Amino acid sequence: MSVLVVGSVAYDSVETPFAKIDEALGGSATFFSSVASFFAPVHLVAVVGDDFRRDDIQFLREKGVDLDGLQTEPGKTFRWKGKYLENMNDRETIYTHLNVFEKFNPVLPEKYKDSEFVFLANIGPELQYNVIEQVKQPKFVAMDTMNFWITGSPDALKKTLSRVDALVINDSEVQLLSGENNIYKGARIIQEMGPETLIIKKGEHGAILIHKDSYFSCPAYPVENLYDPTGAGDTFAGGLMGYLAMKGEITNDNLRRGIVVASALASFCVEGFSVNRLKEISAENIKSRIQKLLDLLRVDQDDEWIQA
Amino acid sequence: MSVLVVGSVAYDSVETPFAKIDEALGGSATFFSSVASFFAPVHLVAVVGDDFRRDDIQFLREKGVDLDGLQTEPGKTFRWKGKYLENMNDRETIYTHLNVFEKFNPVLPEKYKDSEFVFLANIGPELQYNVIEQVKQPKFVAMDTMNFWITGSPDALKKTLSRVDALVINDSEVQLLSGENNIYKGARIIQEMGPETLIIKKGEHGAILIHKDSYFSCPAYPVENLYDPTGAGDTFAGGLMGYLAMKGEITNDNLRRGIVVASALASFCVEGFSVNRLKEISAENIKSRIQKLLDLLRVDQDDEWIQA
Repeated sequence: MSVLVVGSVAYDSVETPFAKIDEALGGSATFFSSVASFFAPVHLVAVVGDDFRRDDIQFLREKGVDLDGLQTEPGKTFRWKGKYLENMNDRETIYTHLNVFEKFNPVLPEKYKDSEFVFLANIGPELQYNVIEQVKQPKFVAMDTMNFWITGSPDALKKTLSRVDALVINDSEVQLLSGENNIYKGARIIQEMGPETLIIKKGEHGAILIHKDSYFSCPAYPVENLYDPTGAGDTFAGGLMGYLAMKGEITNDNLRRGIVVASALASFCVEGFSVNRLKEISAENIKSRIQKLLDLLRVDQDDEWIQA
Repeated sequence: MSVLVVGSVAYDSVETPFAKIDEALGGSATFFSSVASFFAPVHLVAVVGDDFRRDDIQFLREKGVDLDGLQTEPGKTFRWKGKYLENMNDRETIYTHLNVFEKFNPVLPEKYKDSEFVFLANIGPELQYNVIEQVKQPKFVAMDTMNFWITGSPDALKKTLSRVDALVINDSEVQLLSGENNIYKGARIIQEMGPETLIIKKGEHGAILIHKDSYFSCPAYPVENLYDPTGAGDTFAGGLMGYLAMKGEITNDNLRRGIVVASALASFCVEGFSVNRLKEISAENIKSRIQKLLDLLRVDQDDEWIQA
C-alpha cells in the first residue's frame, strides 16, 4: 500500500564542529520520502519555490516518489540554517526563512485521497487537521509535532491529536505536552488525548514504542561517525511508515519491527549531510543494520532465573 | 558458586525533592550483597565502626551473606550525605566522612581466597589490586570505578584494569577514561587496557553490554515512581554478578541475561530509600520484572524486511 506524507521540502544550511554545507536538499517530507520509498509507493504533498533545483526533483522521482502533490509557487523555497554544538545534540537555529512555505495550503490530488497510511510531518496542527479531513478512509494516521506548536497552538494541536492513531515525538516533548516529568506517566496522559500509539525518540538512546499498554524499547544503531543529525527524526518516521504500509496491517509485532527498521534508517541519515548517505544505501545495507539491531536486542529465556 | 564483594558499608543521608532520610544503611557492598544473595552465597569484605547497628548486621545475615570478612574497627562507620536535584539525575555531595574506611585494608579470610566470582566495588584501585592478588584462581573478576580515581590515580587504575575481566562503568566515565566522546570507540580503547567485557550504565536509558565485539542493549525497567537513585549501580552489579555466579559459566548468553537480571533489580532499588525496597521483594517479584524486560526487548524476525 502507498503512504502519504505532508510536510516540508527545503534547502538546509548546516554547520557542525567538523564541517558545513550550504543549501542542501532537506525538509521533513524529503527525508521521509527518501527512505519510505524503499518499502512502499510514496505520495508527497509539499510546496517549493520556483528556484527549486531540477536535480532534486529528479532524485525524488528516481526514488519512485509521486510528486503530483508537490506544489510550485512563485518565490523561494523554504530555507533553514542551523549550527550544532560540540556535543552534536544541542543546536541553534541561525535563521528560518519560510518563503513559499508561509502560505502552504496542503491540497491532496484526487488520487491521494484514498491513502490508507498517512504521515503528518511537523507542520502547523491546523494544516495537519485539514489533511486528515481530505483523506477518505485512513487506516493509520501518524503525526509529528514540536515545542513551537505545543506551547503556541495547544488547542489546535489537541484537536488534531484526537484524530490520529500515532504520535512520533521526542522525550522532552512528551514532558512538555503532558506536563509530567516521568515519560511513562506522560505517555498515558497523551494517549488519553487520542493516539493509542506513541513513538518516543531519544536520539542516541534509541526509541520507545508504547502501543496501548505494551512497551518496546529499541536501541539506536551504534553509529561511530556522527556527521549531521538533521533529518534523523523524519528518516526514522519514513522507515517506520514505509514498513507499515508495506505490511498493510497495524499489529503490535509490525510496530515493533517498524521501529527497528526506522532505527536502522535513521543511523544512515546521520552519517552524512543532507540526504547524501540515503542516496548511497541499498536494500542490502539496510537489511544488514536491521540484523545488527536484532542482535543488539537478542536475549534468551532462562529455565531458572533464580534459585529460590 | 559463591561471589566475593569488596566495597563499602556505610550510613547514608539522602535528600530528594520529595523526602529525606538520615543515616540509613548504605554502601556499595551492602546494596550489592542485598540482591546478589538471591542467586548465590555472598562473601563480603568491608569495614565498619563500633557504632554499626546490630539490626543492620542482622539484615545481612538473614540474607545469607557471609560476614567473616566484615572488619569492625574502633571509631565511626563511613558516612555520606547527598542531595538530589529536581531532575533526580544530578546530585551534590553534602559531605563524605570516611571515618574507619580511611584506613580500610581488605584482608580476605582464608576461605574467601578460593572465590571464583569477584566484584571489586568502587574503592581505590590499589586496594582493588590487593584483593585480586589474594584470590587464588578467579574465574571472573569485575570492577567498578569513578571519576575520582580516573583523574586522580590513572596509573594505579590502569594496573588494576589490566587484571580484570569486566568493567562496570557509567557512560560519562567511558568518555573520561578513554578520552573519546563516542562510547563505542571509547569502549574499544578501554578493552585494550584489559577487560574484554564492558557494562556501560546509562541510568534511565538502560545499559549496554560490550563483550568482545558483541553488543547488547538493555532498557531500564519503566519505573514510574523514582524515589532515590542511591545504590542503583551497586544493586545492578549485585544482580549481574549473583546471576553469573549462579550460572557458573561466563558465556555471551549468560552475560546478556545477567544484564536483564541486573536491570530488574536496580529498578526496585530506586523505588525506596536505602535498602528498604530490596528488603521487601521476593523471587517472584524479581522474576516478574525480568519477564517484563524480556517483553520490552521482544521483536521477531521478518521473512521479508524490504520489498526489493
